[in-house]
Amino acid sequence: MYIKNSWYVAADADELGRSLLGRWICDEPVVLFRKEDGTAVILEDRCPHRKFALSKGELVGDEIQCGYHGMRFDGAGTCTFVPAQDNIPPRLKARAYPVEERHGWVWIWMGDPAQADAELIPDYHWNTAEGWAPVKGYLNFSADYKLLVDNLLDLTHETYVHQRTIGNHAVAHTPMETRAEGDTVYVDRVMKDCAPPPLFKKARGFTTNIDRWQHIWFKPPANIWIDAGGVPTGDNDRTNALNWMVLNSITPERAGSCHYFWGVSRCFSQDDAEIGELIRNQIIATFEEDRDIIETQQRYIETDPNDKPLLAANCDAGNVHARRIIDRLIAAEAAA
Amino acid sequence: MYIKNSWYVAADADELGRSLLGRWICDEPVVLFRKEDGTAVILEDRCPHRKFALSKGELVGDEIQCGYHGMRFDGAGTCTFVPAQDNIPPRLKARAYPVEERHGWVWIWMGDPAQADAELIPDYHWNTAEGWAPVKGYLNFSADYKLLVDNLLDLTHETYVHQRTIGNHAVAHTPMETRAEGDTVYVDRVMKDCAPPPLFKKARGFTTNIDRWQHIWFKPPANIWIDAGGVPTGDNDRTNALNWMVLNSITPERAGSCHYFWGVSRCFSQDDAEIGELIRNQIIATFEEDRDIIETQQRYIETDPNDKPLLAANCDAGNVHARRIIDRLIAAEAAA
Amino acid sequence: MYIKNSWYVAADADELGRSLLGRWICDEPVVLFRKEDGTAVILEDRCPHRKFALSKGELVGDEIQCGYHGMRFDGAGTCTFVPAQDNIPPRLKARAYPVEERHGWVWIWMGDPAQADAELIPDYHWNTAEGWAPVKGYLNFSADYKLLVDNLLDLTHETYVHQRTIGNHAVAHTPMETRAEGDTVYVDRVMKDCAPPPLFKKARGFTTNIDRWQHIWFKPPANIWIDAGGVPTGDNDRTNALNWMVLNSITPERAGSCHYFWGVSRCFSQDDAEIGELIRNQIIATFEEDRDIIETQQRYIETDPNDKPLLAANCDAGNVHARRIIDRLIAAEAAA
Repeated sequence: MYIKNSWYVAADADELGRSLLGRWICDEPVVLFRKEDGTAVILEDRCPHRKFALSKGELVGDEIQCGYHGMRFDGAGTCTFVPAQDNIPPRLKARAYPVEERHGWVWIWMGDPAQADAELIPDYHWNTAEGWAPVKGYLNFSADYKLLVDNLLDLTHETYVHQRTIGNHAVAHTPMETRAEGDTVYVDRVMKDCAPPPLFKKARGFTTNIDRWQHIWFKPPANIWIDAGGVPTGDNDRTNALNWMVLNSITPERAGSCHYFWGVSRCFSQDDAEIGELIRNQIIATFEEDRDIIETQQRYIETDPNDKPLLAANCDAGNVHARRIIDRLIAAEAAA
Repeated sequence: MYIKNSWYVAADADELGRSLLGRWICDEPVVLFRKEDGTAVILEDRCPHRKFALSKGELVGDEIQCGYHGMRFDGAGTCTFVPAQDNIPPRLKARAYPVEERHGWVWIWMGDPAQADAELIPDYHWNTAEGWAPVKGYLNFSADYKLLVDNLLDLTHETYVHQRTIGNHAVAHTPMETRAEGDTVYVDRVMKDCAPPPLFKKARGFTTNIDRWQHIWFKPPANIWIDAGGVPTGDNDRTNALNWMVLNSITPERAGSCHYFWGVSRCFSQDDAEIGELIRNQIIATFEEDRDIIETQQRYIETDPNDKPLLAANCDAGNVHARRIIDRLIAAEAAA
Repeated sequence: MYIKNSWYVAADADELGRSLLGRWICDEPVVLFRKEDGTAVILEDRCPHRKFALSKGELVGDEIQCGYHGMRFDGAGTCTFVPAQDNIPPRLKARAYPVEERHGWVWIWMGDPAQADAELIPDYHWNTAEGWAPVKGYLNFSADYKLLVDNLLDLTHETYVHQRTIGNHAVAHTPMETRAEGDTVYVDRVMKDCAPPPLFKKARGFTTNIDRWQHIWFKPPANIWIDAGGVPTGDNDRTNALNWMVLNSITPERAGSCHYFWGVSRCFSQDDAEIGELIRNQIIATFEEDRDIIETQQRYIETDPNDKPLLAANCDAGNVHARRIIDRLIAAEAAA
């Protein structure tokens, strides 16, 4: 059960071109490509004829030609050609998904197309905005997307999991402030006069303690923004800060797996390519540490013979809000 | 659910000898061997004692000695020896399957032995007949056998999948004529004055267009004959033709997998070993292209959350007949 | 369904130390370690907070610190630390299992802790006793533990499976005497004046026939002792004997897999390290032969569409007793 009436990131804009990309989203196989004019198209990946993967066919102009029997489908999923017959049965139609390209990502709407309002696309403008220098990436995790939501809403684990990059003692030992407003969850943690974590020192050259902050917000199904940074203790000049937006959008793939689209966009040393590479490499290493945790957690949850619920400590206050919102929206869709 | 009262190919005659061959057929594990006089034997592969694989034992004369506890079973499945006891419990009996060797293949009857009439074995005499030069082979496909039946009854796909060997433009673009008579389905396609496909040119040296034909017939569970060939356009002299019988018998292995026994027997250049090797290699390459298609199709069918039926276009008329026959025979056996 | 109110070997004593060992026992994941004073501890391996594997955390003194959020649990499973909060919710408790270390093995009690009487630990004193020279080992089999019980209670298979090490003709061809007394099963086989098997010759230098014996007893869930040996035919002087105790304790891991803890303790050539290595290597080779048999048997049992029961010959008399005892104890626990 997923939230269907919602935008999900289907691909990074750079992944899409004039070849066919197959991907599973919310248990549905889809095929993605760009038309000759660059417009993104997403169709159901099962050929409506005999269910072969359209993504294994080829592009002929703006149409997909199925690799098995040569039937062709345009960007709206309409069949335009059936070999050796003139009439085209109307039921030979591939589902076409609403698609929008924004903030460097290609978005898909999995539910009722009539409700696919582009204004509902979450605001990730930092991926492409003036004055911000982004690094972006994609990872596939063998874990339920909600475990990754938990991970990003409760950064307590940085102290234990990420001590080589972004973890310091202060994160785990400083309480958070959490609140929900409508479908948005806010989690804030301010850590005064603490030791800078290793990546902060490498990326910004801190030699003293810092005042560190993490301002997080969540919107369903699985969008998490983290305004994270630090300045030398007591320094009020933000031009001396390390400050980046950690941009996370998670898309369910199949039961027990998810797509993780991430970006880290900084507002310092924007033109320093070495700093960009440093951040990219260290963030990937950091997320691979999360993968090890979360994929293990997935297996241990799946195999629990008692299916006991996850317990919540204070640090889970944000997670609890987020899961309630997700559950409520799924229930509302089921009821509708 | 499989048709049980039917002959299936269990092995190529060349596979069988004085060692034990284990194989799954219609979800049942069987063990095959030849007796000292060359007669083929097929027994249930689960030892009736503790279910160990008899195929992991050894032949002692014409008996299998189980590799675990040394019990012996003759070609009728009768236990002839139990260690350290004189009386042999009658229930210690391995099921013996009716078996016939014909047309270069070893046939097994999966249903009621009383109905195992050798006259019901499908006629594949081209595998061994005078005046015909066969190449034969065996492939294992991770797909339901009916997907391979579909593939062989509708050759439209040759144009899209096999353009490197036997596909030309004409196949997909020429309508077929289809009819069912009793349990036999006939599919015919005649393509006048078309470009010869690559393998036809290599094997027969065509330099002009050809008149091409495909005459197909199907008998359940999964036997398909294809009389395929071509002559230079307008040439009525069959001695100038490329003409071969594509002989296909498919045996279900387990849910979602099958054994594919195939032969291509030609009535031209019968003594030309190079031509034989060319055909063998190109046909195997062709069937490997089918494997890629069909195994993908299998996965996409298995994972369809809506379990929508496959749709039929005109080109599926033969498939539709064949599946109706299969379904009818399975239903009849279930009712009996 | 397993017998729960029983001691199982969880680990060899040598496996445990100051690092965390994760293992599955009777479908439950557990984590094992030694406290600073050497005492063995076994906790549930699922963190009660978010179900991450405690075995992927680290030891801090005598406590496990979870590798995800840093929560700590002492040897009783009590949570002693939650980051950034003072109160510790009482439900944040990891299950602690009764544990005892005896006879070179670490034992776990899977059922009601109130019934965990150390006096019930099976007597494997030969692993550590004066006058006996042990070799020990651990294997993991992808098969139900009862198949290994069958294997050890009916040594008929030695003749067919282990002819390279401990099998000779006499084993299979000599009837056994079997009886059950309460929950103990006894199986005895005495083979007069038989050819010594290869390992007996290598380990003891026999040049003549031997009088060979196998005295086996079983206690549930899966403990099997084998007093095995031989002397030159007619020789009544046990100081000329090859004699060892084959000590076997099998612990279910998950459905279809088990832990096999074994020892072979001899009362001859106790100080001869070369003999010890010979026995270790040959016994491991022997048990790997059993693995091949039993894992195949497991697959053939799992896939039997008819789920026919295993049949029993005379040689299975001990197995039949043992399985009845196991079934009775499981039923009694289910009823209680």
